[in-house]
Amino acid sequence: MTDCRARLAVIVNNKYFTNAVIALILFNAVTLGLETDRALMASHAGLMHTIDRAVLWIFVVELALRIYVLRGPFFRSGWNVFDFVIVGISLIPHVGPFSMLRTLRILRVFRLISTVPTLRKVVSALLISIPGMASVLSILFLVFYVSSVMTTQIFGVVDDPKMYELYGTIGNSMSTLFQLMTMDNWVTGIAAVTMVHFPNAMLFFAAFIIITSFAVLNLFIGIIVDALNIVHDTNPKNERSRIHEAQMQVLNDIKADVERLLEKTGAKKK
Amino acid sequence: MTDCRARLAVIVNNKYFTNAVIALILFNAVTLGLETDRALMASHAGLMHTIDRAVLWIFVVELALRIYVLRGPFFRSGWNVFDFVIVGISLIPHVGPFSMLRTLRILRVFRLISTVPTLRKVVSALLISIPGMASVLSILFLVFYVSSVMTTQIFGVVDDPKMYELYGTIGNSMSTLFQLMTMDNWVTGIAAVTMVHFPNAMLFFAAFIIITSFAVLNLFIGIIVDALNIVHDTNPKNERSRIHEAQMQVLNDIKADVERLLEKTGAKKK
Amino acid sequence: MTDCRARLAVIVNNKYFTNAVIALILFNAVTLGLETDRALMASHAGLMHTIDRAVLWIFVVELALRIYVLRGPFFRSGWNVFDFVIVGISLIPHVGPFSMLRTLRILRVFRLISTVPTLRKVVSALLISIPGMASVLSILFLVFYVSSVMTTQIFGVVDDPKMYELYGTIGNSMSTLFQLMTMDNWVTGIAAVTMVHFPNAMLFFAAFIIITSFAVLNLFIGIIVDALNIVHDTNPKNERSRIHEAQMQVLNDIKADVERLLEKTGAKKK
Amino acid sequence: MTDCRARLAVIVNNKYFTNAVIALILFNAVTLGLETDRALMASHAGLMHTIDRAVLWIFVVELALRIYVLRGPFFRSGWNVFDFVIVGISLIPHVGPFSMLRTLRILRVFRLISTVPTLRKVVSALLISIPGMASVLSILFLVFYVSSVMTTQIFGVVDDPKMYELYGTIGNSMSTLFQLMTMDNWVTGIAAVTMVHFPNAMLFFAAFIIITSFAVLNLFIGIIVDALNIVHDTNPKNERSRIHEAQMQVLNDIKADVERLLEKTGAKKK
Repeated sequence: MTDCRARLAVIVNNKYFTNAVIALILFNAVTLGLETDRALMASHAGLMHTIDRAVLWIFVVELALRIYVLRGPFFRSGWNVFDFVIVGISLIPHVGPFSMLRTLRILRVFRLISTVPTLRKVVSALLISIPGMASVLSILFLVFYVSSVMTTQIFGVVDDPKMYELYGTIGNSMSTLFQLMTMDNWVTGIAAVTMVHFPNAMLFFAAFIIITSFAVLNLFIGIIVDALNIVHDTNPKNERSRIHEAQMQVLNDIKADVERLLEKTGAKKK
Repeated sequence: MTDCRARLAVIVNNKYFTNAVIALILFNAVTLGLETDRALMASHAGLMHTIDRAVLWIFVVELALRIYVLRGPFFRSGWNVFDFVIVGISLIPHVGPFSMLRTLRILRVFRLISTVPTLRKVVSALLISIPGMASVLSILFLVFYVSSVMTTQIFGVVDDPKMYELYGTIGNSMSTLFQLMTMDNWVTGIAAVTMVHFPNAMLFFAAFIIITSFAVLNLFIGIIVDALNIVHDTNPKNERSRIHEAQMQVLNDIKADVERLLEKTGAKKK
Repeated sequence: MTDCRARLAVIVNNKYFTNAVIALILFNAVTLGLETDRALMASHAGLMHTIDRAVLWIFVVELALRIYVLRGPFFRSGWNVFDFVIVGISLIPHVGPFSMLRTLRILRVFRLISTVPTLRKVVSALLISIPGMASVLSILFLVFYVSSVMTTQIFGVVDDPKMYELYGTIGNSMSTLFQLMTMDNWVTGIAAVTMVHFPNAMLFFAAFIIITSFAVLNLFIGIIVDALNIVHDTNPKNERSRIHEAQMQVLNDIKADVERLLEKTGAKKK
Repeated sequence: MTDCRARLAVIVNNKYFTNAVIALILFNAVTLGLETDRALMASHAGLMHTIDRAVLWIFVVELALRIYVLRGPFFRSGWNVFDFVIVGISLIPHVGPFSMLRTLRILRVFRLISTVPTLRKVVSALLISIPGMASVLSILFLVFYVSSVMTTQIFGVVDDPKMYELYGTIGNSMSTLFQLMTMDNWVTGIAAVTMVHFPNAMLFFAAFIIITSFAVLNLFIGIIVDALNIVHDTNPKNERSRIHEAQMQVLNDIKADVERLLEKTGAKKK
C-alpha cells in the first residue's frame, strides 16, 4: 500500500468523515424534497440545480476515494455496490430517453442505510430473515396463483364488463385477489359484483381471506419464533454449557483424586 | 418384492426423478396460466391441449409407478391420496355435467406441496396447529352463530329492503357479520343502514368487533406460545437433564468412594 | 346427604349425562337457527314451538337436579349462575313488554361454554387475562375520551350538518373515533369532510391512528409476554431448582464426609 | 427542612391525598365531558363554569403544595413538569388569541396517568420502548419520504385535478401514502385514479403495501423479542449464575480438602 493510499484510508474510515457524508445525504434529502415545490423551483431552479450538482460531485469524489483505498475488494460488499449504482445512475445525462432517471436521484437518500451502521444492520437482518420465510411465502404464492387462474376461468368468462375488469385476465384476477387480501372494499367492490352471477361466491371469498390471513399469520409467527430462538438458544446455551463443562472438569478432578486415595489405602474398587 | 419392483422403487425414490416431477408441475403451472390468455388460446388452442394431455399422461404414469412400487401402503399417506385424487379428477372426461372439472386442473399445481419436502412440512405443521386452536375457534363460531341468529331475528324483520339484504336470512346475517369482522366498509355499508332503525346498534357493532378481534388475537397468541413451548421445552430441557444426570452420576460415584474411604479408616458415619 | 340426593349426584356428574346435555344444546342451536327461516316457520310454527318448549323443560329439569344436588354451593360458581340466568330468562312469558326476551333464547347456545370443559377453560383464561390489560386499556380509553371531547369542542361546533353528524355530540365523536381506529373508510368518510374546515386535521388523524395502534400493539405484546412467562418461569424453574437442590445436598454430603476424613487423619483445616 | 414543610410532605405523600386527587381528576373528566352537551350548557353554563373554576384552584393549590415540599427537585421529574404545564395552560385567560386554549382543559384528564402509579409505569415503559424502535422507524420513514418525493415527481405532474389532489405536493403524496399504508379505500381512491395514467402503478402500490407492512411487522417483532429478553435473560440468568457460583464454591472446597488428604497420605500428584 502506498503511503498516500494509507493516509487516505485513515481519512475515509474516520468517524468525522462518515458523519460528514451522513450530514450531506440528509442535506440532499431536504433539497430533493424542496425540488417538488413548484413555486420554489420556478424562482430558484438555478440554485437548486447548482446545489444538486455540487452534492453529486462530492458523492463521486467520496466514492472514488473509497474505491481507490479498497481497490477490488470494494465491490465485494453489496452495500458498496449499492452506493456505486446509486451514484452512477445520477451521472447518466438526464436527457432524451433517460429523462426518467432524474427522478431516481431521490434514491440517494437510501445511501443513509448503507452509511449509518445501525440502519445497515437492521436492513441486513430483514434480508436475512427472508429465506426462512421462503416456504410459507411459496405456499402463499401457490394459493394466490391457483386462485387467480381459477377466478379467471370461472368468473372472468362471464359477459359483464365489470366482471371482465375484475377477472378478465390473470393480471386483473391477481390485482383483485390482492385487494381481497388487503380486505379493502372487498364487499362492495368485489363480492357484490361477483355474487350477481355466482350467488355462492361469498364462500370462496371468505375461504380465501381466512386461508391467506392464516398463512400471513404463520409467516409472522415463524419470524417471531426464529428471532427468539436466535436470542435464546445460542447465547445462554453456550454460556451454560461452558459452566457445565467447568463443573464437570472439577468433578472429574475430585473423582480421580478420591480414587487415587482409595487405591493408596488398599481399598481398590471391585 | 420382485426384482423389477425393487429397481422401480430405486428410480421413483431417486432425487432426480423427484426434481423432474417438480419441474413438470412448474411447467404445467405456467401452461395452465397461459391458457387464461384468450389471444393465445385463439391461435394455439391445439398446441396447449396437446401439452396438457402429455403432462397429464406423465403424471398418470408417475402415479401408477408409485402405486405399483408401494402397493397398499401407498394410500396410507394423506399426501399420496391427495395426488391420486388430483390426477384422478383430470381423467374424468370434461364433457356435459363435468365441464366444470376442467377448471380444477389448476389444482395440480398444489402437487408441488406434496412433492417438495419443505412445503409439505410447512403445510403439515399448519394442519397440526389446527386442533390446538379448536377451542378458541369453537367460541369464535359460537359468538358468530348466536350473533347471526339474533341479528336475523331483531334487525332482519324490519320492513326495509336494505335491512333484508343485510339480515333477512341467517345466511345474509352471516355474510354481514363476516364483513363486520373484516371491518370492510362497516360504517357506511352496515352501521349507517342499521342505525336508521336501531339508533343504538353502534354499541352492538363495536362490541362484536372488539370481542371477535380479541378472540382472533387469542388464537394468534395461543399459536405463538405453543410454537415457543415446542421449541424451548423439549429440546434444551432434554439436553439439560442429560447434563444434570451425568453430573449426578459423577457426584454419586464420588460420594460412594469417599464413604468407602471413611469406612476403611474406621470413621463410619452413624 | 340423603340417599336419593347421593344417587342423583352420581347421575348428574356422569359423563353420559353431560354429553346428553351437550347434544341437547347443539340440537337446540340448530332448531333456533331454523326458526329464522320464514318459509319453515310459516308451515311448521307449531312443531318448532313444541320442540322449543320440550327442550326448555329438559333444561329446567336438568338445572333443578343440579341445584337439588349441590344446594347453596351451586350458586358459588359463576358458570352455574350463568346457566340459571339463561334458563330463567326463557321461563319469563314472552308477551307484552317482554316480547324482546324471545330473541334471547339463542343465548342458551352459550351454555355449551359452561358445559364443555375445554371451552369453559378457554373463556376463563380469556377473562383472567383482562385485569392484566387494565392499565393499557385505561390509557387507550383516556386517549379515546380526551380525543372525543376535543373533537366535539373543535370540530363539532362548525356549522355544517356533515360535521355535526361526525362530531356534534360526544357520542357522535366516539363513534367517529372508533371508526378511525378500525381505519374503515376514514379518508373519504372522516378526513375529507373534516379537512374542508380544518386543512391540518390530517396530522391529528394520523397521530390518533398511530397512537391507538401502538397502544393496541402493546396490549397484544403484554398478553404474549405474560402467557410466555406463566409457561416458562414457573414450570421449568421449579424443576430446575429441585435439580439444583438435589445436587447441592449430595455436594454437601461429600464435603462433610471429606472433612471428617481430614479430621481423622489429623490434618484439620486451620 | 422546616417543621411545617415536613408536615406538608407527609400530607402530600399520603395515600388518601393521592386518592382524593385521582377522584377529583375523574370528577373533572366527567364535568368536562358534560360541557360538550349543548342543552346542558344552555341551562347550567354558570354552574359548570363555577365547578371548573373550583377544580382548577384545587389543582393549583395541590401543585403549589407539591412544589413547596419538593422545591427545585420537583422539576427534575418529567411527570411533575407535565402536571405543571397542564395546570399552567388552564391559568392563561381564555380570551382573544388564547380562546383555543379553553379546549386544552380536557388534557387535565391525562393527569390521571401522572398520578396513578400503574398507568405512569405503563406509559414510561411505552416511552422507553421507543428508542429501541428508532432504526426500524427511520427506515420506515426513509421509505415513506423517498416514495413521497418519487410519486410527487412522477404521478404529481400529470395534468389531472384528481392526480393533483393525490400527489400534487409532497404533503398530498404523504397523505396519500399514509392512506395506502392503512389500506383504507386504496383500490378505488388511489389505485384506480392512478392507473388511468400509469397502468403498471399497481405493482408500485402492492410493493409499497408489502414493504411497509413488513417493516411494521418487524417493529412489532422487535418489541416482543426485547420484552421477552428483558424478562428472561436478566432475572433467571442472574439467579442461575448465583446457583452455579454456589455449586462451584462447594466443589472447589471439596477439591482442596481431597488434595490436602492426598498430600497427607504421601501420594502427591505428579
